[in-house]
Amino acid sequence: MKARELGFNVGSLKVGKKNCITDVPDVKVGHVTLKKDTGNLERIRTGVTAIMPHNGNLFKEKVAAASFVANGFGKTTGLIQVDELGLIESPIMLTNTFSVAPVLQGTLAYMLRENPEIGDSTSSINIVVGECNDSYLNSARQLAVKPEHAIAAIENASNEQAAEGAVGAGCGTMCFGYKGGIGSSSRVISRQDLEKTADLEAPYTVGVLVLSNFGRKEECLFLQKKETDDAAFIRPDGSIMMILATDAPLSSRQLKRLAKRCMIGLSRTGSHIHHGSGDIVIAFSNAEPISHQSNEWMERKRFIRDDHPLMNLLFQAAAEATEEAIMNSCTQAETTNGRKGRVGEKMPLQPQE
Amino acid sequence: MKARELGFNVGSLKVGKKNCITDVPDVKVGHVTLKKDTGNLERIRTGVTAIMPHNGNLFKEKVAAASFVANGFGKTTGLIQVDELGLIESPIMLTNTFSVAPVLQGTLAYMLRENPEIGDSTSSINIVVGECNDSYLNSARQLAVKPEHAIAAIENASNEQAAEGAVGAGCGTMCFGYKGGIGSSSRVISRQDLEKTADLEAPYTVGVLVLSNFGRKEECLFLQKKETDDAAFIRPDGSIMMILATDAPLSSRQLKRLAKRCMIGLSRTGSHIHHGSGDIVIAFSNAEPISHQSNEWMERKRFIRDDHPLMNLLFQAAAEATEEAIMNSCTQAETTNGRKGRVGEKMPLQPQE
Amino acid sequence: MKARELGFNVGSLKVGKKNCITDVPDVKVGHVTLKKDTGNLERIRTGVTAIMPHNGNLFKEKVAAASFVANGFGKTTGLIQVDELGLIESPIMLTNTFSVAPVLQGTLAYMLRENPEIGDSTSSINIVVGECNDSYLNSARQLAVKPEHAIAAIENASNEQAAEGAVGAGCGTMCFGYKGGIGSSSRVISRQDLEKTADLEAPYTVGVLVLSNFGRKEECLFLQKKETDDAAFIRPDGSIMMILATDAPLSSRQLKRLAKRCMIGLSRTGSHIHHGSGDIVIAFSNAEPISHQSNEWMERKRFIRDDHPLMNLLFQAAAEATEEAIMNSCTQAETTNGRKGRVGEKMPLQPQE
Amino acid sequence: MKARELGFNVGSLKVGKKNCITDVPDVKVGHVTLKKDTGNLERIRTGVTAIMPHNGNLFKEKVAAASFVANGFGKTTGLIQVDELGLIESPIMLTNTFSVAPVLQGTLAYMLRENPEIGDSTSSINIVVGECNDSYLNSARQLAVKPEHAIAAIENASNEQAAEGAVGAGCGTMCFGYKGGIGSSSRVISRQDLEKTADLEAPYTVGVLVLSNFGRKEECLFLQKKETDDAAFIRPDGSIMMILATDAPLSSRQLKRLAKRCMIGLSRTGSHIHHGSGDIVIAFSNAEPISHQSNEWMERKRFIRDDHPLMNLLFQAAAEATEEAIMNSCTQAETTNGRKGRVGEKMPLQPQE
Repeated sequence: MKARELGFNVGSLKVGKKNCITDVPDVKVGHVTLKKDTGNLERIRTGVTAIMPHNGNLFKEKVAAASFVANGFGKTTGLIQVDELGLIESPIMLTNTFSVAPVLQGTLAYMLRENPEIGDSTSSINIVVGECNDSYLNSARQLAVKPEHAIAAIENASNEQAAEGAVGAGCGTMCFGYKGGIGSSSRVISRQDLEKTADLEAPYTVGVLVLSNFGRKEECLFLQKKETDDAAFIRPDGSIMMILATDAPLSSRQLKRLAKRCMIGLSRTGSHIHHGSGDIVIAFSNAEPISHQSNEWMERKRFIRDDHPLMNLLFQAAAEATEEAIMNSCTQAETTNGRKGRVGEKMPLQPQE
Repeated sequence: MKARELGFNVGSLKVGKKNCITDVPDVKVGHVTLKKDTGNLERIRTGVTAIMPHNGNLFKEKVAAASFVANGFGKTTGLIQVDELGLIESPIMLTNTFSVAPVLQGTLAYMLRENPEIGDSTSSINIVVGECNDSYLNSARQLAVKPEHAIAAIENASNEQAAEGAVGAGCGTMCFGYKGGIGSSSRVISRQDLEKTADLEAPYTVGVLVLSNFGRKEECLFLQKKETDDAAFIRPDGSIMMILATDAPLSSRQLKRLAKRCMIGLSRTGSHIHHGSGDIVIAFSNAEPISHQSNEWMERKRFIRDDHPLMNLLFQAAAEATEEAIMNSCTQAETTNGRKGRVGEKMPLQPQE
Repeated sequence: MKARELGFNVGSLKVGKKNCITDVPDVKVGHVTLKKDTGNLERIRTGVTAIMPHNGNLFKEKVAAASFVANGFGKTTGLIQVDELGLIESPIMLTNTFSVAPVLQGTLAYMLRENPEIGDSTSSINIVVGECNDSYLNSARQLAVKPEHAIAAIENASNEQAAEGAVGAGCGTMCFGYKGGIGSSSRVISRQDLEKTADLEAPYTVGVLVLSNFGRKEECLFLQKKETDDAAFIRPDGSIMMILATDAPLSSRQLKRLAKRCMIGLSRTGSHIHHGSGDIVIAFSNAEPISHQSNEWMERKRFIRDDHPLMNLLFQAAAEATEEAIMNSCTQAETTNGRKGRVGEKMPLQPQE
Repeated sequence: MKARELGFNVGSLKVGKKNCITDVPDVKVGHVTLKKDTGNLERIRTGVTAIMPHNGNLFKEKVAAASFVANGFGKTTGLIQVDELGLIESPIMLTNTFSVAPVLQGTLAYMLRENPEIGDSTSSINIVVGECNDSYLNSARQLAVKPEHAIAAIENASNEQAAEGAVGAGCGTMCFGYKGGIGSSSRVISRQDLEKTADLEAPYTVGVLVLSNFGRKEECLFLQKKETDDAAFIRPDGSIMMILATDAPLSSRQLKRLAKRCMIGLSRTGSHIHHGSGDIVIAFSNAEPISHQSNEWMERKRFIRDDHPLMNLLFQAAAEATEEAIMNSCTQAETTNGRKGRVGEKMPLQPQE
């Protein structure tokens, strides 16, 4: 069940149809979940999640993008080039900390296959892979993720409501001392939200998908009955990856502003952004793609004016969708047993009245 | 009344004696408040606030420091050098947007007077001045603040519980559609919080002082009865300056980490960090001052280990003290009339049970 | 004499007509020079320089902008907002370190006078003031610069070839152990430089103006006969402000890329960017101004494609114009006596064959 | 031959014994070079280079570190965590753009083998892999580099003078239109350089190793006879990785300052830092290692004072060693044939008189 079905209502903006990042037109999500008991109290509980910024060839039609690192205890690849050029030209991949290499390799193989000119007659390709450390439940040292899992996640991707909870890269992650994982939510801003600007080309959608892996029981602000987290001192500090998608036309500078607002949603769930946490936001807009090559020497782009009230509504949407996506990553996650006899229990949330 | 006296309890860490930034040993705060009716519906409602990082000569004994800009629609001076050298060598001054120049000038005059060698036999001095735009209530174009007001605020500074609400730089600012201003809070981390590390040289204090000037009525999360903010479309987006002080030994890199956690507290009050808001944190530690000149070629410094549980508690303290300081800036602010017949009303908070 | 007249030819790109930042259409420069002997070996040797990004109302028509801080021992104001919004809405002012406040105040007064709505019915204004420490020659503690000097520099500004050397903010600065100051240079990129792209809307001009105040005699790479700098240990480390202007349509992200290339030119003169140096670049493009207010909710902008060969030529232009501007700041500067009997001697450059 | 043997003398500081990054005590370098003709005009011309910051267990004894991205068209991994924590805990690996994944995987395997607790009872490990695009000569799409090559490069590493030119990751790269590759140089600062500070614990060494892959023939400033670069429009823009090592005790903040000065050396060779170039510096000091775990809650560290003349000498050393390392990457590189019948010719440098 989504948090909203339990009665948790976050914020005041309208929610998208699927309440999912796939409410943003053309955005797709695919998962590969790896679950296997390999003996001796070893458990594979991990996977790969792919977010496709649009339906077409991502190398040939890149999307405007930006990132924000709230805490950099993380191994995400590709952000240097995202920051320099303000764009993303690959699927955005999520996996566990030790599997960044195979996922990078599989995604590269996929992109090389789709684009025979990369590394031959044209330049290289920059691939974005984010990660969380799932080694509390997952036997991460067994390196179960292979390049083909990344390719499969990409090929699985669909525009349907994405599976949430203990799936894909979220199979083995923990959130607030309970089972976490993948969660998603969306907000839609329509003309009614901005009555004075009837000429607005709306609606615009903001969708967020998170991979949650942070926090202690006593920190959670949406958990009514607080317990103390016995495992706190043995679990690593965790992380959260937040992927924000929108179809509002925004520059990379503006997307960085949106990315920062995801921290508002994260903060409201109770996180203190621990020392050992990789809390990273990657934001993109597929409204105005940038072609890889062009006979034009000039780009012509449209952006929402920074001072238009719509911008503050987009900020609010980023905050609300992030908070609710994190809740969904908990409400949708079923109890999952892990290595060494450990158990990631389902968060004991009561329906709100 | 402080928010706590109304029954608002933020977080779980212990509060300092004065629940104020001046709980951090040697930190002092001084205000100069300018209130004058200058006819024709013009009202001077502004001032200056000085935060002194320690009791001594700040140029000769600098403090480790860092800043974090959550949203950069602001005119704070001095942060370029703070970022390069990781230190502050002046009082930290707060005032209104149009008065950065006279406050910079007054503070420079003060520092030149105290240090005849600056600009003569030794280098220059870097002065930090933050600001909020109080022009909703204050007749800011009248430029009422003069250099001598900055000097007076510095000379006023004391280690007592700082005055809060509509005082100093907070005389004319608005928060969540009601009267805001200066607020402060503190947290103390003692050995009991960290039972396993009995050798800890504790307690450590984290104090935050804010100048609040942001938000709309409907955004406030600690206001029980929400109203819609009629003035929303005519008030500028506002800002918040957050000053964090601690006596825990931290490097400038670590202080930047703490500064980022102030955003957690800000987020929990309801802010969406609007486009037109200068949301800026300045953090310092007076534990290990850096001397201006030395016969030594080497610095020897102590820092808390990043991976020690104390660090996460300091992060939590930064979040909690910021949230409560913002609440205090509202609960302590009395109704203040302003220019053009405008009124900044006292926030209608009911005591919590 | 300009360096070029002495036979110093920097780079391979074509030089603009005036070999000055004012070759960029609509860019204007104004100086106020303050020279006065105030007795007792005290000498006022300072001033103000204003760079006007275009002819119109800068608040109403803002220019795309970015900054790069190579070394942050400097007190430049306004860059926080430049970085957040990617634009400049004021003249760019240069002065000495202790005069940032009066220049900020004078420029604010000028902007308030020109725009009665600032701080009344519309938001605040962000003003950019850069500085160098001229206290080796100038009696900086006498605080000779007043707000009216800033206004005069703005009102003086013209599109003519700017005066160079010991003028304006450069009256008292030192470069490579000799007299430095204001220098400027430009480069023009025309269709011939890019034969394959005949559709290019060219030419484009890149102009750089520097305020030089750095380096020791033995570091200078364009000085043939090296001497050792006796005063090295008593002069502060100095600084350099670099202002880059262009009429090529570039986003703020792209302007930051150009700003970084100014470091190439600085590096080639011999600088090691000393610890105590504020080495700061501010870059703007007046090609596509951003209006302060609009009935539109959308901006429509053009940018040069990052991958077009023109971009690398603009990078080269930034490097070449910066190097030559620094040379000009030396070749144009006459011997200037200063406080305490000090003398800033004209750099003994021989004509190149 | 090294550039110095050809008569190119860069700067004025003393050169280390090996004129190599391995002059820094405990720093080791290892290469694996892959050369194979795979038919059909396909040529494997690539490899892996490992820089070991010290002799011990890098995960257990981490080194202070920082990075600087001059241009971010690059795929280097690990810098997010380096920036957050100010340290490196792995070998620093270099390879080609498409081989970041296998090198990451091999290095991870090596670190997991050496440290059975990683991912089990302790946290994750952050691995730094830099790259250049060698696809002008190398058949990069054939993905010749395997994880075992990374392990072999690590195990090969020695404190001897490192092989330079067309070796390791430099096997297939191009510099200024000729064959480039690996180059290294060093500078030593001793007490004589700082006569007034006899108590200095000296000498200190700064070593730089570069992987050069940038520039066009006509840009090179140390090439006497300029030719035009016919291949300019078909070669990708290239990149340069710069690794700086020192045994001077510096904080991560100070190491970032040093890292920026490497750009001075790069600039002086003639680079304009093209759009498509990943120009990235990674700097570390092995003077004061940081232990992975400790019973202490406090770090006690020493740093050189920022304002000590030694700091400017270290800046100069970074600039000089980088410039000379780039020269060495050219002078040491032999003609190498590549895919599609292309040839990377030895740079035609004449001995200087």
